[in-house]
Amino acid sequence: MERKKIRDLGIVVGQLPPGPKNCLTDVQGVRVGHVTLHHPLANADNEWACTGVTAILPHEENIFQNKVVAASYVFNGFGKSTGLVQMNELGRLESPIMLTNTFSIPAVTQGTLEYLLEQNPEIGETTGTANIVVGECNDSYLNSIRMMSVKPEHAKEAIRIASTDKAMEGAVGAGTGMVCFGYKGGIGCSSRLVVDDGEQGVYTIGCLVLSNFGTQDELYSYNRFIDTEKKRRVENNNEDAQTDGSIMIVLATDAPVNERQLQRMAKRCGIGLGRTGSHMSHGSGDIVMAFSTSQTFPHFSSDRLEQQFLFREDKRMMNMLFCAAAEATEEAILNSLTRAKTTIGRKGREVEEFPLDLLKL
Amino acid sequence: MERKKIRDLGIVVGQLPPGPKNCLTDVQGVRVGHVTLHHPLANADNEWACTGVTAILPHEENIFQNKVVAASYVFNGFGKSTGLVQMNELGRLESPIMLTNTFSIPAVTQGTLEYLLEQNPEIGETTGTANIVVGECNDSYLNSIRMMSVKPEHAKEAIRIASTDKAMEGAVGAGTGMVCFGYKGGIGCSSRLVVDDGEQGVYTIGCLVLSNFGTQDELYSYNRFIDTEKKRRVENNNEDAQTDGSIMIVLATDAPVNERQLQRMAKRCGIGLGRTGSHMSHGSGDIVMAFSTSQTFPHFSSDRLEQQFLFREDKRMMNMLFCAAAEATEEAILNSLTRAKTTIGRKGREVEEFPLDLLKL
Amino acid sequence: MERKKIRDLGIVVGQLPPGPKNCLTDVQGVRVGHVTLHHPLANADNEWACTGVTAILPHEENIFQNKVVAASYVFNGFGKSTGLVQMNELGRLESPIMLTNTFSIPAVTQGTLEYLLEQNPEIGETTGTANIVVGECNDSYLNSIRMMSVKPEHAKEAIRIASTDKAMEGAVGAGTGMVCFGYKGGIGCSSRLVVDDGEQGVYTIGCLVLSNFGTQDELYSYNRFIDTEKKRRVENNNEDAQTDGSIMIVLATDAPVNERQLQRMAKRCGIGLGRTGSHMSHGSGDIVMAFSTSQTFPHFSSDRLEQQFLFREDKRMMNMLFCAAAEATEEAILNSLTRAKTTIGRKGREVEEFPLDLLKL
Amino acid sequence: MERKKIRDLGIVVGQLPPGPKNCLTDVQGVRVGHVTLHHPLANADNEWACTGVTAILPHEENIFQNKVVAASYVFNGFGKSTGLVQMNELGRLESPIMLTNTFSIPAVTQGTLEYLLEQNPEIGETTGTANIVVGECNDSYLNSIRMMSVKPEHAKEAIRIASTDKAMEGAVGAGTGMVCFGYKGGIGCSSRLVVDDGEQGVYTIGCLVLSNFGTQDELYSYNRFIDTEKKRRVENNNEDAQTDGSIMIVLATDAPVNERQLQRMAKRCGIGLGRTGSHMSHGSGDIVMAFSTSQTFPHFSSDRLEQQFLFREDKRMMNMLFCAAAEATEEAILNSLTRAKTTIGRKGREVEEFPLDLLKL
Repeated sequence: MERKKIRDLGIVVGQLPPGPKNCLTDVQGVRVGHVTLHHPLANADNEWACTGVTAILPHEENIFQNKVVAASYVFNGFGKSTGLVQMNELGRLESPIMLTNTFSIPAVTQGTLEYLLEQNPEIGETTGTANIVVGECNDSYLNSIRMMSVKPEHAKEAIRIASTDKAMEGAVGAGTGMVCFGYKGGIGCSSRLVVDDGEQGVYTIGCLVLSNFGTQDELYSYNRFIDTEKKRRVENNNEDAQTDGSIMIVLATDAPVNERQLQRMAKRCGIGLGRTGSHMSHGSGDIVMAFSTSQTFPHFSSDRLEQQFLFREDKRMMNMLFCAAAEATEEAILNSLTRAKTTIGRKGREVEEFPLDLLKL
Repeated sequence: MERKKIRDLGIVVGQLPPGPKNCLTDVQGVRVGHVTLHHPLANADNEWACTGVTAILPHEENIFQNKVVAASYVFNGFGKSTGLVQMNELGRLESPIMLTNTFSIPAVTQGTLEYLLEQNPEIGETTGTANIVVGECNDSYLNSIRMMSVKPEHAKEAIRIASTDKAMEGAVGAGTGMVCFGYKGGIGCSSRLVVDDGEQGVYTIGCLVLSNFGTQDELYSYNRFIDTEKKRRVENNNEDAQTDGSIMIVLATDAPVNERQLQRMAKRCGIGLGRTGSHMSHGSGDIVMAFSTSQTFPHFSSDRLEQQFLFREDKRMMNMLFCAAAEATEEAILNSLTRAKTTIGRKGREVEEFPLDLLKL
Repeated sequence: MERKKIRDLGIVVGQLPPGPKNCLTDVQGVRVGHVTLHHPLANADNEWACTGVTAILPHEENIFQNKVVAASYVFNGFGKSTGLVQMNELGRLESPIMLTNTFSIPAVTQGTLEYLLEQNPEIGETTGTANIVVGECNDSYLNSIRMMSVKPEHAKEAIRIASTDKAMEGAVGAGTGMVCFGYKGGIGCSSRLVVDDGEQGVYTIGCLVLSNFGTQDELYSYNRFIDTEKKRRVENNNEDAQTDGSIMIVLATDAPVNERQLQRMAKRCGIGLGRTGSHMSHGSGDIVMAFSTSQTFPHFSSDRLEQQFLFREDKRMMNMLFCAAAEATEEAILNSLTRAKTTIGRKGREVEEFPLDLLKL
Repeated sequence: MERKKIRDLGIVVGQLPPGPKNCLTDVQGVRVGHVTLHHPLANADNEWACTGVTAILPHEENIFQNKVVAASYVFNGFGKSTGLVQMNELGRLESPIMLTNTFSIPAVTQGTLEYLLEQNPEIGETTGTANIVVGECNDSYLNSIRMMSVKPEHAKEAIRIASTDKAMEGAVGAGTGMVCFGYKGGIGCSSRLVVDDGEQGVYTIGCLVLSNFGTQDELYSYNRFIDTEKKRRVENNNEDAQTDGSIMIVLATDAPVNERQLQRMAKRCGIGLGRTGSHMSHGSGDIVMAFSTSQTFPHFSSDRLEQQFLFREDKRMMNMLFCAAAEATEEAILNSLTRAKTTIGRKGREVEEFPLDLLKL
């Protein structure tokens, strides 16, 4: 049976309304694809693949040829993400954003590179190279991470099947083996709508997280939606998973913002993260990758100049976008908990799903 | 009648214990001094001085001669603070940290400079210059900020009277005219104790904030200690004060950390800030200035090498320090609300004190 | 007798042509004003004012009301400059850029604030505050810096008299007491023209430096225009001035670039600085403040959106702008040497002008 | 016949003496290994492998178990390097530093990961993950980069054969197919010795570059060692290679510096880069990866505290280290030119070696 989003359980996070899918894909054109690997490994004693790949595409066109405004922000840099340096230098995204486990960064980068080379025969020939963005969390409690089950084809498959549908959540794609606040975590999504002054426009902010952080103590002590009378200690994961871990946050919007403004929005995702109970722990890679679909920028053009549209920052709109980024992040993390189901993995380990009766309903 | 700290009202923020004074001055040797200006201005129609200066000193020695490890972190840079560039380049603090209103940065910098020159006749003669750190918020709703009532002497006076006593809070010193979440804010303090593994040491984290940010909506929608049934709109401040403003956060510790580790701690103050309801709004200067008193570094020395002691980051301690920074910041902000009293200022304006019945007790 | 710019002495720096004035003011509308203080101080034994203020205005309109794109870059942060935090957060300049000595930051900030308040009665009343940008170098070898001869009025005067004329160079304004490579330095200017592909546009890059860094050894060992056979040691300055010091670099352009692109240009000023012989020494504040006059952004507007025009970065133009920033900085520094005259200051000290026969002509 | 280092041709860069090998490996314990791939590809029309891998190891122990202080600095971020985020967050290096071509980042990361997993069976089991640092340049003019000839085994082989010998330079390892200033570039090395005040210690700064940037115009117009009378245009490379490209700079030292001080040193490599003629062009990844071998930090320890030794920054030493970083970088780049031989690659292309008669001897 499907588990529900927290809003469908009756808890409203913040004050802004969500989009129709309450998902990253509420931002027009944005696509998400998951490839899930969940099975015992042959010829290995109680070792499992419990992992996967998640692909996020900003639109349905060739992304290398039609770049979008992008920015990243690192809250805590205990992480192996790739592609952030160039994304921040140029303020542009030119590849899908890929998520996977820590040791599958090379395989997923390789698969995404092959995808881009197939799609763009001029890369490395008559034009330069492509910057590939991959984020990761460590799923080694449930997944036999040293076995490296993810292959380049899995990345290509995740890209191929990506769709604008409401994204699957919980123990799926890159989230298959992740653990959040001591419970089963993984993929969670949410979105917010902001209405411009004078009703001149409605803009969407979407968020997808890969949650793999936090302790039960943090959840119980700081999260305002937990009924602290019902809290109890569960012993289903190792100390490393409890105290550290990571979170990858993908933020999308159709609002007209430039790379500086988008990075300001990305910073506010940390507010939503903190409100769930996180302290961005020492061993955590807590990273936001953000993009705006409001304009595309062609790779080739005979134009000398580009123009970029951006909100005037003295209006209400910037603060509403900040608020939306924080709310969508908080709710996406909570959805990764309420949507994920109990999952078994290597060495007979099992991570319990978040018990819904812990919620203050 | 004195208003109380939130903990004394029965609300416990987080899980770590506070120090004996629940104040920045729980960190051994740290001193705080306030100079408060609150009076109608002569020869001006309904204009008031409703402002002041707050000085924080890391220890009782000559700070220029005995520097401490320091770091800053800017969440949102709509602010005019001075001294952060050199503090981050060198990882050292060599002046008091001063807080005041936006337009008094020059007067307070001047006064602090005069203090340092008097104390150190060699500055600008046989040795170099001194880096002065001053933070600010905009108190122009209550204070006639264009009149610039703060003079260099006020800065020197705040330094002179600084003491290790439990600091005064609320509408005092730099906090005299500040507004937070639509209520009277200003100075708030808190502290946390962390006990090392195996009880080998107890370390203190202290926080002092100058709060001047946020809207009532934010407080009501995101703060877990508010009884939302009792919330009501009050109309006592201008739109600017409501939507923007700033917060200066001073974080002190006696834990042995280097400048990189200290900056990691400073980043976690944003978690506490976000938990109170802030979204680090566009027009806000949201800035942390942090220092550690665990070692002092002499300005003059014939030694070629220095040694710096630091916690190994793989232990529980770093995460506890992060948690302490977040908790102390959150509680200090709440204390700035529960401690401040209704205050009158220019143009017959009055900012109401935070009504304690709004708390979920 | 006037001393000459290095180009007028026959040395061509780089390959791009300078503008007609070979000055910051070649960028249309940019104004420079100097106030010079150079006299013995009354009632003091052999103490001198040997200092001043330099004001740079991006255009002739009200700068607070008509902001321009801006960015800063810190090569080495041993400096007390103010205003950089907000300039980088918002990518905008809304005050004149002011230069002075280290201990006159408060006086010059105060004077500039008074100028802005007089010009804009709504600041601090119905609109927010203004971010003032001030840079500094330490002129304490020649100037009795502890005496603080610069007053707020000097800042206002420098702004008032600023003009689009070819700026005075050498021992003038903020440069009056500065020392560069052991010789008299101070203010230097240069500019470059870049012609767009297909001759569709000519853009100007202007640079003004306040030079106060470097040792004779550095100049002799790394500067390609020095005739090393003629080098000789002169003993006219203290060790501090020799090994450390600072440089403020103001970069202006009319090229259509956004704040990210402008910061990329600002970074290339370090190339020009390094080519003169600098190693950005430990005790040096080596800072660029850059702006583009290609668009102005109104403080008040009913528009919801702004548009920003920017060069496509895949064209030749960005590299030419980078090259121009490096060349203009290098030549501006050399001009600060060839233009400055021997200057006397406190305690009977004299700093010798750069001997032109050291040049490889 | 071996081509010579520029110093052996009679040109002395700067004023500090080089170490005995004038190489990165003058820093005690540092090892370099190259794997070179240079051959026509089977079943492909005139396509070649003209590429490779270079591995740098800070010492002969297990690097994951014995980490060293590290820092990186990005001058221009048009690059796909991996591992920088965590290196800067923690100030530590725990893997070899690997260099290769742009599209071989995944293969080389994979190979290095396999090496670390073999050597450390606890990674991903009882301890966390490992942060792998890989830098790249684009060698697509000579190398059929889309064919991805580099395999994970090549990375492991480069690590295996790394030695403390004087490193091979020019068209070797990752440098096999690189082009610098329009001539054959690739690997270049240099080193400097700095003697502490009072002769209390001698410290070594070593540099290895992978050079792949710049135009002939830049070399001719800005490099002080070029005899401009002999310059001539050669037409042996495509426009992309001429105008953009990248440079990876690896800086090693045995000086006792912490991660902040090391990053300050890394910044000065840009001075050496600029002096050769570079403008850090738009399409260039210009990145420094630096480490200090002065201390190692164990991955596992029961200690609660670590101590870090560092130079006092007020002494001559920091400036000498800055100077050494700039000089060693400049000379390493020049050595990559004077040491590389004419190289043929794909499509019958040939890149001419730097003609030594261009030097001003």
